Amino acid sequence: MPSSRLAALLDVAQDVGADALVVSFLPDIRWATGFTGSNGLVVILPDAAHLVTDGRYAEQARAEATDATVHAPGYDLVGFVAAQGWFSPGLRVAVQADHVAVATMRAWRQTFRGVEWVETAGLAEPLVAVKTDAEVAQIVAAQRITEAVFEDVCGLIRPGVTEQEIAAEIVVRHLRRGCERMAFDPIVASGPNGARPHQRPTDRAIRRGDAVVLDMGGVLGGYASDMTRTVFVGEASGEQRHVYGVVLEAQEAAIRVARGGMTGAALDGVARSVIAHHHYGEHFAHGLGHGIGLQTHEWPRVSYTNAEPLPVGACVTVEPGVYLEGRFGVRIEDIVHLHGDGCTNLTRADKALRVL
Amino acid sequence: MPSSRLAALLDVAQDVGADALVVSFLPDIRWATGFTGSNGLVVILPDAAHLVTDGRYAEQARAEATDATVHAPGYDLVGFVAAQGWFSPGLRVAVQADHVAVATMRAWRQTFRGVEWVETAGLAEPLVAVKTDAEVAQIVAAQRITEAVFEDVCGLIRPGVTEQEIAAEIVVRHLRRGCERMAFDPIVASGPNGARPHQRPTDRAIRRGDAVVLDMGGVLGGYASDMTRTVFVGEASGEQRHVYGVVLEAQEAAIRVARGGMTGAALDGVARSVIAHHHYGEHFAHGLGHGIGLQTHEWPRVSYTNAEPLPVGACVTVEPGVYLEGRFGVRIEDIVHLHGDGCTNLTRADKALRVL
Repeated sequence: MPSSRLAALLDVAQDVGADALVVSFLPDIRWATGFTGSNGLVVILPDAAHLVTDGRYAEQARAEATDATVHAPGYDLVGFVAAQGWFSPGLRVAVQADHVAVATMRAWRQTFRGVEWVETAGLAEPLVAVKTDAEVAQIVAAQRITEAVFEDVCGLIRPGVTEQEIAAEIVVRHLRRGCERMAFDPIVASGPNGARPHQRPTDRAIRRGDAVVLDMGGVLGGYASDMTRTVFVGEASGEQRHVYGVVLEAQEAAIRVARGGMTGAALDGVARSVIAHHHYGEHFAHGLGHGIGLQTHEWPRVSYTNAEPLPVGACVTVEPGVYLEGRFGVRIEDIVHLHGDGCTNLTRADKALRVL
Repeated sequence: MPSSRLAALLDVAQDVGADALVVSFLPDIRWATGFTGSNGLVVILPDAAHLVTDGRYAEQARAEATDATVHAPGYDLVGFVAAQGWFSPGLRVAVQADHVAVATMRAWRQTFRGVEWVETAGLAEPLVAVKTDAEVAQIVAAQRITEAVFEDVCGLIRPGVTEQEIAAEIVVRHLRRGCERMAFDPIVASGPNGARPHQRPTDRAIRRGDAVVLDMGGVLGGYASDMTRTVFVGEASGEQRHVYGVVLEAQEAAIRVARGGMTGAALDGVARSVIAHHHYGEHFAHGLGHGIGLQTHEWPRVSYTNAEPLPVGACVTVEPGVYLEGRFGVRIEDIVHLHGDGCTNLTRADKALRVL
């Protein structure tokens, strides 16, 4: 088993009582083998690892996935696996229960008679969450691009410019600065649109007095960045300044105490209690953050719904917000890298209140 | 039941023996309700339709999904549904078996005791595939943007320019011309890279004598475009001209006979037999095309693996290719709208061999 990642996955499968496993979730296939195609299965047996993809990716898979034996038959990957005889009757094979569809699992059961399937959720997530130095460096490099783009677009935001125009500039400048794609569609939400946390950019022209929420990230070498800043146009009212201060206080309080080993709920609670203390608790209607890496949103959740400890080594976002329906919203987001005794903020962009 | 789409979905569920259904696949939720958020469940009961999403999307969901009753509790959507008592014991509820994860289904079974689940694959697909005039017009509008971008970038392709530079221009120009995002990362594959059908753009500088495969699409009003052209730089060799002619002959032969009611395998076979006749059969290692709409790749497959009839009213791509490893590739792709007696090609961009 040449790759330590493939071996680690096999260990996890053995921990849940399996002899082998099938990795079917594409981001995990990329993590385990380096293969970046859009179709594939990785079969990890006790003594061998196979990547099965379709003919479109034959050459690419052999170039990328050097630690697994690559097979590129037609589109019937499952039929191909069955024909290899890798799964002898009685073999216990772990599958990613949170990433395999019910219909797919049914087809596998019909194809592989006698295999004992071990349907396990969260198989790869705890491994994938812990970032190597090289992975952290890649996220930082992506975040630096996003920070530079944020500076760029601050120079473009003025009354009369539409949200969509700013959003297009955000995309263009990420690509020009080297990102292979966006991590997600950027959010440019001005004035009352800012009160919808995930509003798409509209043709609304930005006005003097607006708060503008800018949430953006690109992908560099496969790894995502993600940063939110809220800026003000021409002026910021007393209430806007107050809400901005509350959100910033909440975000900084959370970052101050963030560390691996505390639960997602505990870290979320630190920010949430600051916002609640200022009587905006009901206006913070989402979790505090999420893991980030090869996926923009990955395990673990930094949320009141997550009673599990956050792993040491994970990169997570910290992004509280306050949303006042019909009026404006404020969100501030950084990425931090969790250590056993604290965290490193991977984001450098200034967070002082900014009036453009 | 105010929306005909919600009613049609309920009909399909009743056809498979269910009383109600849960729509969980986001593109189908958008199709059924108009809701564009990234988290939600649609519950269709005999006498009511509910959209359940999280607090981030409360305002947006109410604005978009006017035919369903909108609920925006916290993140525990399933717990919220359970608390409503919509699913009485013994109720037969259809679920999208090809879009629900094994672990999710297990959680639903545990939460809703006494419900009889009807796990059905392909529930919404035959409905979603049949496009209204307005949907076809939206795909055409997106395709017109892609055609204009193709003309733009033909003016930029010359020796020394890299694939990545051309890819960035493709993205920028789609956004500048009004697309809300890309339908997929554009492919710009020059020279030997063109022999990998889904190669990502690299920093390879384009050279005189290269074939360059350009595969691109944007999203406009939610609907995707998708077009591939292969152009030649400075000159085209006799072999390149020959292969181009073979692929074009195959593509035009398929479009000439394409209609709803013929199987995906039959339409694929028309193009494949032309290519095989010219002895390039082994170099066409993918299916002929795919459905397109709210998703770039949607049901049905136009492929030798699909023995089902293509529905009248579907929009599908027709994209044969020939890939000569280590040397070059050629692919040509249009979108067609299938009628009972033929098809309309929704793509206008010229397909005569082009030397830039």
